[in-house]
Amino acid sequence: MSQLRRDPVTGRWIIVNISNSKTPEQYDLKPQVKKGGTCPFCPGSEKMTPPEIEAVRNKNTKPNTPGWSVRVVSNKFPALTIEGELDNHGIGIYDMSNGIGAHEVIVETTDHYKDLADLSIDEIKDVISKYRSRMSDLEKDPRFKYMLIFKNHGAPAGASLEHTHTQMVALPIVPKRVSEELKGASNYFGYRERCVFCDMIEQETHDKLRVVSENKDFISFCPFVPRFAFETWILPKRHDQNFHSISDEEIKEMAEVLKDTLVRLKKLLKDPPYNFIIHTAPVSDGANDHYHWHLEIMPKLTNVAGFEWGSGFYINQTSPESAAKYLKEVK
Amino acid sequence: MSQLRRDPVTGRWIIVNISNSKTPEQYDLKPQVKKGGTCPFCPGSEKMTPPEIEAVRNKNTKPNTPGWSVRVVSNKFPALTIEGELDNHGIGIYDMSNGIGAHEVIVETTDHYKDLADLSIDEIKDVISKYRSRMSDLEKDPRFKYMLIFKNHGAPAGASLEHTHTQMVALPIVPKRVSEELKGASNYFGYRERCVFCDMIEQETHDKLRVVSENKDFISFCPFVPRFAFETWILPKRHDQNFHSISDEEIKEMAEVLKDTLVRLKKLLKDPPYNFIIHTAPVSDGANDHYHWHLEIMPKLTNVAGFEWGSGFYINQTSPESAAKYLKEVK
Repeated sequence: MSQLRRDPVTGRWIIVNISNSKTPEQYDLKPQVKKGGTCPFCPGSEKMTPPEIEAVRNKNTKPNTPGWSVRVVSNKFPALTIEGELDNHGIGIYDMSNGIGAHEVIVETTDHYKDLADLSIDEIKDVISKYRSRMSDLEKDPRFKYMLIFKNHGAPAGASLEHTHTQMVALPIVPKRVSEELKGASNYFGYRERCVFCDMIEQETHDKLRVVSENKDFISFCPFVPRFAFETWILPKRHDQNFHSISDEEIKEMAEVLKDTLVRLKKLLKDPPYNFIIHTAPVSDGANDHYHWHLEIMPKLTNVAGFEWGSGFYINQTSPESAAKYLKEVK
Repeated sequence: MSQLRRDPVTGRWIIVNISNSKTPEQYDLKPQVKKGGTCPFCPGSEKMTPPEIEAVRNKNTKPNTPGWSVRVVSNKFPALTIEGELDNHGIGIYDMSNGIGAHEVIVETTDHYKDLADLSIDEIKDVISKYRSRMSDLEKDPRFKYMLIFKNHGAPAGASLEHTHTQMVALPIVPKRVSEELKGASNYFGYRERCVFCDMIEQETHDKLRVVSENKDFISFCPFVPRFAFETWILPKRHDQNFHSISDEEIKEMAEVLKDTLVRLKKLLKDPPYNFIIHTAPVSDGANDHYHWHLEIMPKLTNVAGFEWGSGFYINQTSPESAAKYLKEVK
């Protein structure tokens, strides 16, 4: 069972496993992506996962059998569980809540040896469509305040299974990083009456120094203030705060820019570990002019050290201007 | 040359290498602590480092020669450099500054094969005394707003040299994490007229569930809201916002609790990678009742993944109650 706990100083939340805490021996100090054995995400292993929630599958095939090309299931080891009611309480100076939420896995392909960058644009389109439909579905549960879609690729980026997949967590609280971003965007808007992300698109298109890839509806660039070397963001050109209001046509355009960007990163950095995260507005926020959903890709080429943990400052040895130049040159 | 850049949305700063950016090939995807060869921190290699700033050394020995037991030098590859004046400027919507600051290294012992946990209490006392004297000295430079003392132990925690050492960075800006902590502590004080850290000490002493080590002046415990498994904090019992006002007697008491805590972590988790960070008030803050300096030790047993990067939420598989129990049982 997990519990949500809130730090009384910084307001930071954690999800802590209280009923089944890991012992010192259970930490493998050289974490590896599990290889070999039977993969629960491969066709034929459908019974190894919790029941299918959604899938892109051939007509005349049944759920939880082969015949799918993208498959969504609950996480077998969820950080948060869907049963129960939220229950906030305190012990002395400390605040906590029970760990209500949803934790799903989007298996992106049947092919154990491909990763997202290797899929066709049509296949990536199907994956992004599933992100949208799962998000729209979970939004209906009034207990959930925020939906986080993220991908861990490679062990240093936290992946524990090799078969390519994305995760989605529905949270009963709007997380701190998201609130900070919303507040920052709102402050910027209050001052200039313009969306900071729309302004970024304009400046990046004008400067051209940091742009990596672009089509009609999307642009990818190395942001001016990247925490990590070769960090790259993908922004929709149309201002919208919600990822899930993306249209079918925009999904195709996004798949194109996402594939092009991931292929460039993969070739240039020899299949680097990376995380990507979709930044979108909280569920209950009405339409607004200041927030703009986007996707951030963060390669993990170095280890985060005490300086970063202590300050929130990041040291980046490769400028985004230089990173974008290398990425654009990839054939 | 490095540049400070400020994210227009979140206010997060980065230090970016702009004149000598690392190329894709320069990232070693399996970072290792450098072993073998000549160690620049071993006695006899004093000429391999920038000149000595301070040292604990035998009488009749000269700076930059053997005869020392603790030695402070400038970092040979500093994140920030001490020359020049601060120069804030903007490009379009972006803010930046030149990379002014200081970056020093405290070599904790002459013995290449010992780490901080292996030193005697008297030796650790000398190390902490150097933290204090360097911090007091750098405070005199009006360009510096914050001094961060941190230690990276093991490659997964960002260490690049094996010989045990601590780093200190003087920053021209109060970093975001520090401001957040100060603000949170001030809010708590505003509401209850008590220091949140003093309250924590009282609650931990009362609950006893999470205490690891304690003596007259210091207490170490697994905090109620740990980001990382086996995270342990050391707090002085006397309320003070500034680390550098620690007395000689308190330094001895701190050395005792620090050694005891590090030895327990080392034995229990088989010499885990870890970071520790001294959290102290910014230079210019006058005395206050709400902030309380302390040291946070964060073992790095797992990799930080997309969920954490996207949310600022941390998932911890070991409860602090369980971690403290294991740590207390170490013989």
